[in-house]
Amino acid sequence: MLRSALRLRRSMATFSGLKLNEVVNVLEKFAPASLAEKWDNVGLLIEPSTDKHVERILLTNDLTEPVLGEALEKNVDLIISYHPPIFRPLTRITMSNWKERIVVGCLANSKALYSPHTAWDKVVGGVNDWLAKAVDIKGIKPLVPEPGAVDGTGSGRLVETSMPISQLVHALQDHIDNSVHVAYAVDHHPKTFVHTVGICAGSGGSVLKGIKADLVITGEMSHHELLDFNHNGTTVLLCNHSNSERGFLREFQCILKERLQEKCEVIVSEKDKDPLQTAFRSNSQAVQQVKQ
Amino acid sequence: MLRSALRLRRSMATFSGLKLNEVVNVLEKFAPASLAEKWDNVGLLIEPSTDKHVERILLTNDLTEPVLGEALEKNVDLIISYHPPIFRPLTRITMSNWKERIVVGCLANSKALYSPHTAWDKVVGGVNDWLAKAVDIKGIKPLVPEPGAVDGTGSGRLVETSMPISQLVHALQDHIDNSVHVAYAVDHHPKTFVHTVGICAGSGGSVLKGIKADLVITGEMSHHELLDFNHNGTTVLLCNHSNSERGFLREFQCILKERLQEKCEVIVSEKDKDPLQTAFRSNSQAVQQVKQ
Amino acid sequence: MLRSALRLRRSMATFSGLKLNEVVNVLEKFAPASLAEKWDNVGLLIEPSTDKHVERILLTNDLTEPVLGEALEKNVDLIISYHPPIFRPLTRITMSNWKERIVVGCLANSKALYSPHTAWDKVVGGVNDWLAKAVDIKGIKPLVPEPGAVDGTGSGRLVETSMPISQLVHALQDHIDNSVHVAYAVDHHPKTFVHTVGICAGSGGSVLKGIKADLVITGEMSHHELLDFNHNGTTVLLCNHSNSERGFLREFQCILKERLQEKCEVIVSEKDKDPLQTAFRSNSQAVQQVKQ
Amino acid sequence: MLRSALRLRRSMATFSGLKLNEVVNVLEKFAPASLAEKWDNVGLLIEPSTDKHVERILLTNDLTEPVLGEALEKNVDLIISYHPPIFRPLTRITMSNWKERIVVGCLANSKALYSPHTAWDKVVGGVNDWLAKAVDIKGIKPLVPEPGAVDGTGSGRLVETSMPISQLVHALQDHIDNSVHVAYAVDHHPKTFVHTVGICAGSGGSVLKGIKADLVITGEMSHHELLDFNHNGTTVLLCNHSNSERGFLREFQCILKERLQEKCEVIVSEKDKDPLQTAFRSNSQAVQQVKQ
Amino acid sequence: MLRSALRLRRSMATFSGLKLNEVVNVLEKFAPASLAEKWDNVGLLIEPSTDKHVERILLTNDLTEPVLGEALEKNVDLIISYHPPIFRPLTRITMSNWKERIVVGCLANSKALYSPHTAWDKVVGGVNDWLAKAVDIKGIKPLVPEPGAVDGTGSGRLVETSMPISQLVHALQDHIDNSVHVAYAVDHHPKTFVHTVGICAGSGGSVLKGIKADLVITGEMSHHELLDFNHNGTTVLLCNHSNSERGFLREFQCILKERLQEKCEVIVSEKDKDPLQTAFRSNSQAVQQVKQ
Amino acid sequence: MLRSALRLRRSMATFSGLKLNEVVNVLEKFAPASLAEKWDNVGLLIEPSTDKHVERILLTNDLTEPVLGEALEKNVDLIISYHPPIFRPLTRITMSNWKERIVVGCLANSKALYSPHTAWDKVVGGVNDWLAKAVDIKGIKPLVPEPGAVDGTGSGRLVETSMPISQLVHALQDHIDNSVHVAYAVDHHPKTFVHTVGICAGSGGSVLKGIKADLVITGEMSHHELLDFNHNGTTVLLCNHSNSERGFLREFQCILKERLQEKCEVIVSEKDKDPLQTAFRSNSQAVQQVKQ
Repeated sequence: MLRSALRLRRSMATFSGLKLNEVVNVLEKFAPASLAEKWDNVGLLIEPSTDKHVERILLTNDLTEPVLGEALEKNVDLIISYHPPIFRPLTRITMSNWKERIVVGCLANSKALYSPHTAWDKVVGGVNDWLAKAVDIKGIKPLVPEPGAVDGTGSGRLVETSMPISQLVHALQDHIDNSVHVAYAVDHHPKTFVHTVGICAGSGGSVLKGIKADLVITGEMSHHELLDFNHNGTTVLLCNHSNSERGFLREFQCILKERLQEKCEVIVSEKDKDPLQTAFRSNSQAVQQVKQ
Repeated sequence: MLRSALRLRRSMATFSGLKLNEVVNVLEKFAPASLAEKWDNVGLLIEPSTDKHVERILLTNDLTEPVLGEALEKNVDLIISYHPPIFRPLTRITMSNWKERIVVGCLANSKALYSPHTAWDKVVGGVNDWLAKAVDIKGIKPLVPEPGAVDGTGSGRLVETSMPISQLVHALQDHIDNSVHVAYAVDHHPKTFVHTVGICAGSGGSVLKGIKADLVITGEMSHHELLDFNHNGTTVLLCNHSNSERGFLREFQCILKERLQEKCEVIVSEKDKDPLQTAFRSNSQAVQQVKQ
Repeated sequence: MLRSALRLRRSMATFSGLKLNEVVNVLEKFAPASLAEKWDNVGLLIEPSTDKHVERILLTNDLTEPVLGEALEKNVDLIISYHPPIFRPLTRITMSNWKERIVVGCLANSKALYSPHTAWDKVVGGVNDWLAKAVDIKGIKPLVPEPGAVDGTGSGRLVETSMPISQLVHALQDHIDNSVHVAYAVDHHPKTFVHTVGICAGSGGSVLKGIKADLVITGEMSHHELLDFNHNGTTVLLCNHSNSERGFLREFQCILKERLQEKCEVIVSEKDKDPLQTAFRSNSQAVQQVKQ
Repeated sequence: MLRSALRLRRSMATFSGLKLNEVVNVLEKFAPASLAEKWDNVGLLIEPSTDKHVERILLTNDLTEPVLGEALEKNVDLIISYHPPIFRPLTRITMSNWKERIVVGCLANSKALYSPHTAWDKVVGGVNDWLAKAVDIKGIKPLVPEPGAVDGTGSGRLVETSMPISQLVHALQDHIDNSVHVAYAVDHHPKTFVHTVGICAGSGGSVLKGIKADLVITGEMSHHELLDFNHNGTTVLLCNHSNSERGFLREFQCILKERLQEKCEVIVSEKDKDPLQTAFRSNSQAVQQVKQ
Repeated sequence: MLRSALRLRRSMATFSGLKLNEVVNVLEKFAPASLAEKWDNVGLLIEPSTDKHVERILLTNDLTEPVLGEALEKNVDLIISYHPPIFRPLTRITMSNWKERIVVGCLANSKALYSPHTAWDKVVGGVNDWLAKAVDIKGIKPLVPEPGAVDGTGSGRLVETSMPISQLVHALQDHIDNSVHVAYAVDHHPKTFVHTVGICAGSGGSVLKGIKADLVITGEMSHHELLDFNHNGTTVLLCNHSNSERGFLREFQCILKERLQEKCEVIVSEKDKDPLQTAFRSNSQAVQQVKQ
Repeated sequence: MLRSALRLRRSMATFSGLKLNEVVNVLEKFAPASLAEKWDNVGLLIEPSTDKHVERILLTNDLTEPVLGEALEKNVDLIISYHPPIFRPLTRITMSNWKERIVVGCLANSKALYSPHTAWDKVVGGVNDWLAKAVDIKGIKPLVPEPGAVDGTGSGRLVETSMPISQLVHALQDHIDNSVHVAYAVDHHPKTFVHTVGICAGSGGSVLKGIKADLVITGEMSHHELLDFNHNGTTVLLCNHSNSERGFLREFQCILKERLQEKCEVIVSEKDKDPLQTAFRSNSQAVQQVKQ
């Protein structure tokens, strides 16, 4: 903690900073809020004052209370949380609910909050394009192209490839640096070659539903959705919801630094992580099948 | 401004204060949030921290931006705004909307906010009972008694009396200290005696609809509602919405001071007022009829 | 009463009259029923027989029972009521409800009834264009242009001007020949110059919502709508609902006479008036501010 | 026509008449409007004036234009139409629609209109009890007893009996004095004995649905409903809609005369009849099967 | 039964048969399932296996239990039932409900099931064109032309002709080989000449509603619909629902045989019939009017 | 396979069997279909004939196509599938959809199908009581007691206990014989003792929402639900959906055998398994934390 505090203090001298609305303009240029789904709640969600100055920015997948603590400790000015912490609209802002406490914590400490969510999912070079890199890509296009947008923009991705499932599982494990859950199609096994792969970061059941693909990669999917995919000839790889998204933050850190012309410091949260950990039972049969 | 600042500074020495949740308990004892209508949004709406200390309280009918400025200038800890400033749920809290600016202003300056609204309308000794005092009361009961509550609790009031309309108009002008708008029933004139009077502070069209009364008093009512009342034999007196409510704050100031055992200072806003002013046209026929 | 009866008798000799459907055709040419809002109920609402002959026509803003009495007394054949007396559909037609009594009264006495409502609001030279004349007009266009209609047709009006508010208040008082209610924008005062004025006769809250204007003129608006406009920089002038509409009847009387080639007598109701009268309280502060 | 005109003229001297509201009270005592289904529109539907005097009353099943013509010709004061002529609420009353023309015709000629519909269906001694008389009744009760009402009140009837179908068909033909349409249950034939019979005048598909009965009698039923009944072991007899109801008018004529103490003349329409007539094809197989 | 069994056995040697999907392709070529109404449920409804072979096909209007018995006895492979036996979606398939028993009976005995319904109604040369042949056709077109389809395709038919009603009734009796029910327009009688005739097989109330026609022919219509048509100047002829459709099966038998190049035997059900038979009452007035 | 075939053949001599409806009665006695949730579809879903005889019964959690294959190979008469294979109602039954193929497969091969689902979840000694056995139970009651049912019946379970999380994780791994996924509450760690445990087999997010518990055990839960639980002080253990249910089948096998008095053979599917397998990444940090 001491070393990181020192490192931070030093950096504080270095960054001239920008006005909040200038940073927001840069973020909107990367992926405009208008790109997001209609049901989504994206953009600048908390603005503590009209003339907020931004020197340090924290990137996180989820703005949990530990991450907010990190933001206060590291004295950042703006939090960019991929998932919007305000989703169900608020009728009050008190200490009795963790989502409301997040809002109080930001406003009482003058932290701005920006959430891109599905705007980043759809944009070229965004979350889904990052997730697709686990696959040996021979061709790639959106599952639902965005009308009137740059080629390649849209919901989900469809990738052409040629890999056996077992190899793709290992590649995905490496890419997300974590375990992967596999649900084989009725006639598939680890050595089956797949040629079309559907991609949807997060909870992809509805976006991926009904597509023709040998395999799909997403974060989470319900049991009954899994059985439908498996009986329609599609193997499913699950990363856990946020593990299918979080890795993009490292990529975006570089993108944002450059686009802000190094005027702001951009750091990635150390507290942000997927809530789930697998307590593996060694004598279960799962791994062996994957290892075949 | 200097004098009021001096007066305030002196008073700051006098009040020991209470914890926010202690003040809230006192407010809930006067009129519990559970008494409010289901569609309403009442109670503690903004809580800046779990251990907020309250020494000075500002009462207002509407928390407008001028009133928030007054609250900051007078350095109050808790604002009690009869109307809830948060009604349509919020999906973001920025500087681009006045309701959101109110929330930012409170949280950034550590002001708590409490709104009672329809809980105060229904409670015995609340807003409607205050408004009814304009009438020479021979009997009074709620229009919609609250099931399971103390006798006299409920929505609206029905008052028995015996006054000519012209006298009641003047009494109401005196009570609210403001102009009054009159819509005579089809067969009524200034000298008509009324014996039953319906009361509903605020916008009373739906609560008063269909009641048997010679006259009703409310804050505002639409043109088509007026015609219905007038054709059903009911004269309508309108105060303007907030003028039918605001006068209660002076009464409540005394009630609250006493209930808080003088541990907090309780002040009434000087900036709070009804948005409407009548630019009277002298040669119009309205006043003459009232004067008959 | 004697004089007016004599005047009427004389006129009865003068007018040859037209068939009801011919008069309706002339009315539809001025403002077709298809122009009205989808939720509205306009056009020929009561047709007492297929061959109804029309010699005398009564114009009114609201068809109240006093106005129906006037229509019977003056023996008119067709009543043109700006507001449709039938709005909520009828499942029976009895004497127990004033709207049903109006229908019985028309049919039992062979009076036809026509209501234009929002068709007249939208048409060029209609109610909103009449109301806008209170302003010193430098430019005018509809707030919501009607697709496929003549230029200038549509809901509400947006007027360019350059006047201080106090002058506009007086001009509006003169135009509607009645008192006006003023709600100043947070930063406005009587001497503030306004350059864009939104116009919507009747109850304009929803049509005017969200427009960019320094001032709006309408008939009535709720307290909470007023606070929204005032915080968004817009002063509001209220005329009372029907006072924002009634004055057009005098204009339309001339228009209709000419379009019917003087074959029918066209009279304006003497009993029709806004239900509200302001009982002014002399020591209140409202007028003074306007007078500054 | 001459004879009937003479008969009418004579009777006009005989009846002192009653006030409309007195007649309505008598009708409501027989079957209160509150007994009707929630979706129904019953009671006094047209009231031409508050002091309407009633000397002659016309009973009809449907108030068609020919029946209205008869009412005008016979100069009745009140029409009692079993089916309510106003069912879909009216937004206007013109000559362009036959239902509106009925309303104009009544009001322009000062005819009152009363409709009982489902109140008469449910009441003891009402339409369903009349229809059930076609069956040799060993026991009878409502299909859906009315909560809180006199025993025997409710929707539909369930009759215990013991008759072969062919005999019941003939009895029903005699009772309604008209043809009957038969749909045999899958295992039934003319000689099959039935022991439980469901009764529902009018369009009985939904009331009779799902009951356990060997046979049901109603006015009309759709093809797909018929197949359902026949496959569930139930033979269906159809009378045509109004033929399952009209015969009750003769019974009610006597009831009403007596209840009005002969102060009003009560006549049954001669123009009212079911719209359908069967153009029988002699060589078809239908009748033969019934005759077996 | 013996003779028909022999005839069937002989025929079994003659037909080479086709694969189920080949027969379905032929059926879809005649009238694609996409032509059907959105609310309808048409096409291949039961497919007992992917390689089902079809030698014998049974045509029926309704797949009742007697018709299913016939299908089993005659050992057909595919049943084409004009009305879909599955309409309300199934949550279980048991013996407690006749619709479910039909499904069990088909699947347990490897019978395929195809239903065309409204696709046959709309297609050129389909059910409505067959029904229209009862009229002396001078011109014919769909009531609701199908966008993007071959000329003449669509819902219902409008026929130009010139016949007195009595002649048309007899022609319709001959065409459907059954009785017909007549509801005269208010001003019509048997000798009235009709020039425009609306046609809609089945239950035509909604498709025919509001058309301008002197007469309409359909299968069934409710009492209140009949009164509406009759008051709008339209005489109605009713065939009974399935009698307005069934005759087309004979025509389609020839069409299908030829399109299958005589590789499958196509038979029409002998058990399929309209559920209703009229038990005619000789002394009723209906026939006489038709005979005038 | 040979050995199991032999074993099966031998057993076929041993069991006299029962009628299907007798078996269904026994199943309903254990857990009546009326106990299930309103949205559920339970009970006898496929009944191939009224006199179906049952000698061999297959228990499965999900009736997938591999499990149906096993049922056919093992020649069972009745399949009891915990999850209902028919959930979305069917409008057709063809080979183009796996759920429809399941239905065809059952009916074409005369297999009956019974599904208990939420009736087994609620019943005492059912699925949730089985899952709760992973916990050291000091007290247990339903989360939502079933009104009018035997004590202990209802949705979910609330267990009192006293165990550190790490020990409970291992006990759950042993109980379900599989891996477990852990999401720690914000202030929890492996050594935290838990005293109240919520239980809901399957997808428990909505049943468990808002309960006060230190830890909950369910099959699957979405990312955003996990964050809510973790911030409200509740650790979550996930088993994968069907692994939270499947183990009950072994218990039920014994129960059913006894209740059928050994007249039917009852076997548990060998093909039924959860679709998901975790491909564990050894260097990830998850296990280590659990091992602490």
